[in-house]
Amino acid sequence: MNRGDFVELCEVGPRDGFQFESVPISTRFKEDAIRRLLGAGLPRIQATSFVHPRRVPQMADAEVLLAALGSGQLPELSALALNLRGVERAIEVGVTTVDLSIALNEQHAADNANSTVEVGVRAASAMISRARAAGLQVQLGLQTVWGYAEPDDTPLALIDAVVDEFAGAGLESLSLADSTGMASPSSIVQVVDRVRDRVGETPIVLHLHDTRGLGLANVSAALEAGVRRFDTSLGGLGGCPFIPGATGNVATEDVAYLCERLGYETGVDIASVAAVSRDVEALVGHPLSGRMYRLA
Amino acid sequence: MNRGDFVELCEVGPRDGFQFESVPISTRFKEDAIRRLLGAGLPRIQATSFVHPRRVPQMADAEVLLAALGSGQLPELSALALNLRGVERAIEVGVTTVDLSIALNEQHAADNANSTVEVGVRAASAMISRARAAGLQVQLGLQTVWGYAEPDDTPLALIDAVVDEFAGAGLESLSLADSTGMASPSSIVQVVDRVRDRVGETPIVLHLHDTRGLGLANVSAALEAGVRRFDTSLGGLGGCPFIPGATGNVATEDVAYLCERLGYETGVDIASVAAVSRDVEALVGHPLSGRMYRLA
Repeated sequence: MNRGDFVELCEVGPRDGFQFESVPISTRFKEDAIRRLLGAGLPRIQATSFVHPRRVPQMADAEVLLAALGSGQLPELSALALNLRGVERAIEVGVTTVDLSIALNEQHAADNANSTVEVGVRAASAMISRARAAGLQVQLGLQTVWGYAEPDDTPLALIDAVVDEFAGAGLESLSLADSTGMASPSSIVQVVDRVRDRVGETPIVLHLHDTRGLGLANVSAALEAGVRRFDTSLGGLGGCPFIPGATGNVATEDVAYLCERLGYETGVDIASVAAVSRDVEALVGHPLSGRMYRLA
Repeated sequence: MNRGDFVELCEVGPRDGFQFESVPISTRFKEDAIRRLLGAGLPRIQATSFVHPRRVPQMADAEVLLAALGSGQLPELSALALNLRGVERAIEVGVTTVDLSIALNEQHAADNANSTVEVGVRAASAMISRARAAGLQVQLGLQTVWGYAEPDDTPLALIDAVVDEFAGAGLESLSLADSTGMASPSSIVQVVDRVRDRVGETPIVLHLHDTRGLGLANVSAALEAGVRRFDTSLGGLGGCPFIPGATGNVATEDVAYLCERLGYETGVDIASVAAVSRDVEALVGHPLSGRMYRLA
């Protein structure tokens, strides 16, 4: 198979999805779900995040979960760290890859972390150095690339500057996030082309939310623009349940199906992922936003 | 404005959406919803269908509704007829446009109407003649163009033959329906290009369902392929509630938003449509499948 025909999906439901659910999800349930997702052929899974348990109680079992999974022997697994303390925890528990994430929009940085983009960039540099010194691979995620409160309210010049800052940092990959679902097929192509010109060989990953219904249209446009890595979430899980209408990441099953129909290979068994999604749906007690998980 | 930048949305929720809801929807509610949708700038609305009230009780008030709306003076309104009796009712009540619909897949014709494609084609010819003789405009819809039980299980040669049959019939437009959500962005382009080569000046309308999550990606591909007319449904209403996972037409608000973001004009005020969708949601008692109606 030609490398250009393989699309790599990173399952982020166990982190980006589970974290927002109000029903407590046991470590045992998470472990079982992640093992089944690996069995379904997901080549990457973001298993958890190292955040303060008071901020995100659902992720309080990060170390216990990763130890139960034997994450040191599973290069498919990664975990999200938001500060140096999180990176230290990642090193300690022994994951192969740590995912970092910084705001790329001043308003977002202010609202979310009472910080600035500049402060976030400096913190990320220190985190990357520490993680790489310990032998971890690093994926850096840039949030709200396509806008925060309005489409395109993140200046292109700022995107350029931050991408340039990290282009030579030895990242395993650079993730561009449409955190609030502001992208359109045309702005996807515009930004991807622009960033690709600056990052050289570093692979680009897209992390897209379906807040305004354009998620799969955006994936389709990105595929045409040459993107071959996407974050997806089982059943479309995710989105803050306290924000009316917030929907999650593009659904793993739906993206895998789109890829399949367009002639790309993902290695993902849609029916196996869908079975996990239906168990998650039964546990959390509300319908998920994906489509295919109900059918497959 | 260049004609090429205008995308015409036909709101089909009052027919394709309401018909499947188990809660009785009053004529008064329908009339009010349709007036508000007209006020929101929808240039076309399929208001109801002439079917036997025992088959679709929700449409039993077709004549009463159209009379209350004054459909003879509202060229924006159309109604669906599935047989010659339906066409007679359309003529009698005085709508400007009648929408017809035939199966294009033998299994679908057998399952749905215990009939054949050939029988459906002959019946449609008679209906078109009768409607045109009475001065009505006719839109002909072809169902399951992208497949019925499986993607692409409707033979291209059959599509060609049926399209050729009606190419000179004086249709106002030809609607191609992805009735069971089987299309992909690539098969959309393939079929649209093929049909356009055969129908000459007759406008092509796409009627797409979002069953497998590819609805908006398919609209996006169709826009690029030059399609400028789509059926959409407020809030994504529709889909048989008795079929688990069946979802409706692509949502009016979501398609209007996609068009807007891609630089097309629809004349539709998304917030006004969304307000109607939320009232419908409250009435039918279940979440609709669209995204934007929750935000706008």
